[in-house]
Amino acid sequence: MEQTNPIIEKIRTLLSGKQFFALQKYLESLNAADIAEYLEELLEEEALTSEELLCCFRLLPKDQATETFADLDPQLQSQLINGFSDRELSALLDDLFLDDTVDLIEELPANMVKRILQNVDSGTRAAINQVLNYPEDSAGSIMTTEYVELQPGMTVAQAFDRIRRTGVDKETIYICYIVGPTRKLLGLVTVRELLLAHPEKVLRDMMETHVISVSTLDDREDVANRFARYGFNALPVGDKEHRLVGIVTVDDAMDVLQEEATEDMEKMAAITPSEHPYLRAKTLEIWKQRIPWLLLLMVSATFTGMIISGFEQALAAQAALIAFIPMLMDTGGNCGSQASVTVIRGMSLGEIALRDVGKVLWKELRISLLCGGVLAAAAFVKILLVDGWLMGNPSITIGVAAVVCSTLTLTVILAKLVGSSLPMLAKRLGFDPAVMASPFITTIVDALSLLLYFQIAALLLGL
Amino acid sequence: MEQTNPIIEKIRTLLSGKQFFALQKYLESLNAADIAEYLEELLEEEALTSEELLCCFRLLPKDQATETFADLDPQLQSQLINGFSDRELSALLDDLFLDDTVDLIEELPANMVKRILQNVDSGTRAAINQVLNYPEDSAGSIMTTEYVELQPGMTVAQAFDRIRRTGVDKETIYICYIVGPTRKLLGLVTVRELLLAHPEKVLRDMMETHVISVSTLDDREDVANRFARYGFNALPVGDKEHRLVGIVTVDDAMDVLQEEATEDMEKMAAITPSEHPYLRAKTLEIWKQRIPWLLLLMVSATFTGMIISGFEQALAAQAALIAFIPMLMDTGGNCGSQASVTVIRGMSLGEIALRDVGKVLWKELRISLLCGGVLAAAAFVKILLVDGWLMGNPSITIGVAAVVCSTLTLTVILAKLVGSSLPMLAKRLGFDPAVMASPFITTIVDALSLLLYFQIAALLLGL
Repeated sequence: MEQTNPIIEKIRTLLSGKQFFALQKYLESLNAADIAEYLEELLEEEALTSEELLCCFRLLPKDQATETFADLDPQLQSQLINGFSDRELSALLDDLFLDDTVDLIEELPANMVKRILQNVDSGTRAAINQVLNYPEDSAGSIMTTEYVELQPGMTVAQAFDRIRRTGVDKETIYICYIVGPTRKLLGLVTVRELLLAHPEKVLRDMMETHVISVSTLDDREDVANRFARYGFNALPVGDKEHRLVGIVTVDDAMDVLQEEATEDMEKMAAITPSEHPYLRAKTLEIWKQRIPWLLLLMVSATFTGMIISGFEQALAAQAALIAFIPMLMDTGGNCGSQASVTVIRGMSLGEIALRDVGKVLWKELRISLLCGGVLAAAAFVKILLVDGWLMGNPSITIGVAAVVCSTLTLTVILAKLVGSSLPMLAKRLGFDPAVMASPFITTIVDALSLLLYFQIAALLLGL
Repeated sequence: MEQTNPIIEKIRTLLSGKQFFALQKYLESLNAADIAEYLEELLEEEALTSEELLCCFRLLPKDQATETFADLDPQLQSQLINGFSDRELSALLDDLFLDDTVDLIEELPANMVKRILQNVDSGTRAAINQVLNYPEDSAGSIMTTEYVELQPGMTVAQAFDRIRRTGVDKETIYICYIVGPTRKLLGLVTVRELLLAHPEKVLRDMMETHVISVSTLDDREDVANRFARYGFNALPVGDKEHRLVGIVTVDDAMDVLQEEATEDMEKMAAITPSEHPYLRAKTLEIWKQRIPWLLLLMVSATFTGMIISGFEQALAAQAALIAFIPMLMDTGGNCGSQASVTVIRGMSLGEIALRDVGKVLWKELRISLLCGGVLAAAAFVKILLVDGWLMGNPSITIGVAAVVCSTLTLTVILAKLVGSSLPMLAKRLGFDPAVMASPFITTIVDALSLLLYFQIAALLLGL
């Protein structure tokens, strides 16, 4: 069943044969993100010692080594740092982009953080401390301070000079930001525009002044959604006084969108989001993500049980009703989760705002009437034909079918309204709407539908 | 409750006051994606006639008009095209990026497609037809043929000349592709490298030759995942003979990731994915996305009902067992959906491959033993203390608690194994794994857990 990766096999063979020159040539042909993954897999399979990891790493050309390092797991990064001399460490930190250095520091133990801060220059140290101070899910925490900054009085030729002089260290050079004396963002120019412009043209006269920017404290998901909306490659980040403090680049925005979608799916399935990919996460870690919600939801099912217990006598008299409980519960749950997932995703894509609550409820009401009607009609026919006539069960009467189908319609309406309104309510109260998905909606709708079921049965069948 | 958008209000006021000059100045300060959304909202609220839409559009500067057009709904795009003269249409098509033109053509009725193809030059027409021929979810369908192409013998200065001459129409100029005489992709250079290199340097000597490329028929989600993995701004697309035919840019990849995540969530919640945002979709359209799955799932709940009917006599004798059915069903469903959502997301992120099925099942088995154990212990205590002692229900015996808790443990194990393996099986058979999420897993696990429940009850309580 298990297949091995031919590239990993090749690295393994070259390493064990000590063919370092061939290994170097081979690694050079690979992308840094791939090298990082292969090294991680080899270490995991214990086919690579710490010394060999360090050796592979030293075989890589400088740029590739830096990129590979940035893509490694924090655990492997600290293994490598432990093996590095101060000179090697300082050279690496010089080449790392600032946002990667910050990511690294956030994951490392305190003594290694100290060693890192000792090995960077004071300007970088100040920038690191600045970014580290922003809240976890803010734009500030994903921004970099390495961007190209130009002055409005510069000519195109001067701008190119500046880009050539300072561009090597910048995360992107293709969008350049023009700031005034108080560091206020005045506009931007792209390298495309600069290339097409006359060398003597002054930036002030050609810059785009209607710049969309974000603030350091904006939610990182909102920022990432703007990239998807506008198709930008970078967005400037301003502080409270609208001074330019950094930029967010599209690759980081893409990572945020992927992470947020994964987190939303996990929350929708009653899982606490995790940092690690599934196959790398320990069993206990995954268990910890799942068990609290399972316990909570199990205990809340007590109410459903109590409702059934309360009607035990009635159920004993009309045992045929019991068989329809799973169908009613499942259909209610499915209807509720359709509505809640639609609303949760719509809100996180920015398509549905809190002020749309009226529109959403009105829409769901109409949808649920349509769905409830069709489902009830189908169920009515099915119950009488299949469960009653075909199975020859005399206790399935028209009365029983009527009770089941009217409960079904009401359950569908209720489920859609609860499913669409609870995520919006959660957001209004400052909670994450994604938690209000299938599992919670199901538990609530279960209890409500059973109450309805027994009330309607009492009314129609006189239990 | 409903709030209005101040920007839309301003546009509405300027329009109704016929202050076209002020409106023009105001629109110029907005981003194209925003203008498109505001125009759509105004039309929807019937605060804008077709003529006024055309008038707004004509007020925009050329570039902004093109971008706004590309961001509009297909319905509004065709309204505008109907209002355009042939000259206006031809100017617009000249400015539109090729991939936007293709998107447009895919949505328009045949007579308008004809008019469009008549108004583009023959080269563009050929390129449109080429892209239109790729399958819907392929890399070819999201690529553009507008990229900068250089020859290996060019110097840096010559490369800049070429970029300046042809770059205006290209979707990105920052990554340039170097092709040989047979159009085979030889390497790439970035504008950053070109800017930092000596003008006389020859591209052959500086280009990156280890280029990661995709094929026209690759799945567009796999392609988009590579952007997330490698952090590229563009990826070259080759045909079967490895000739360069186009590029995919990061903004399109980001859209794909967003759409695919939304589609997966919808499928996980038993909804057929839709093209339109929720608030814009018609009630009947949303109903059509939801009702087939609800019907299918409702009918499959028949089996659960049949299982209960089969044990009706036994249930009448031990009525206390009925009250625990919802709890068992819900817990099973929750456990199954935790496992299935984890595996589905892992597969679509490329973290879990089909060959990992052994690892996944072994992991889920251990997790389910831990979860099942804890849940059963908690349920045992709760049933005896709360349901039995606190509620004073004499029919809740240790035997009943034992039946419930052993069923619970087995259900959890079963749910996790079914939940994690079915999505992988679906993928192996060529279906979309996302369909094998909560609703289906729940229906299957429901039936299995009820069968277990009654078998164990028969065994332990001698029903």
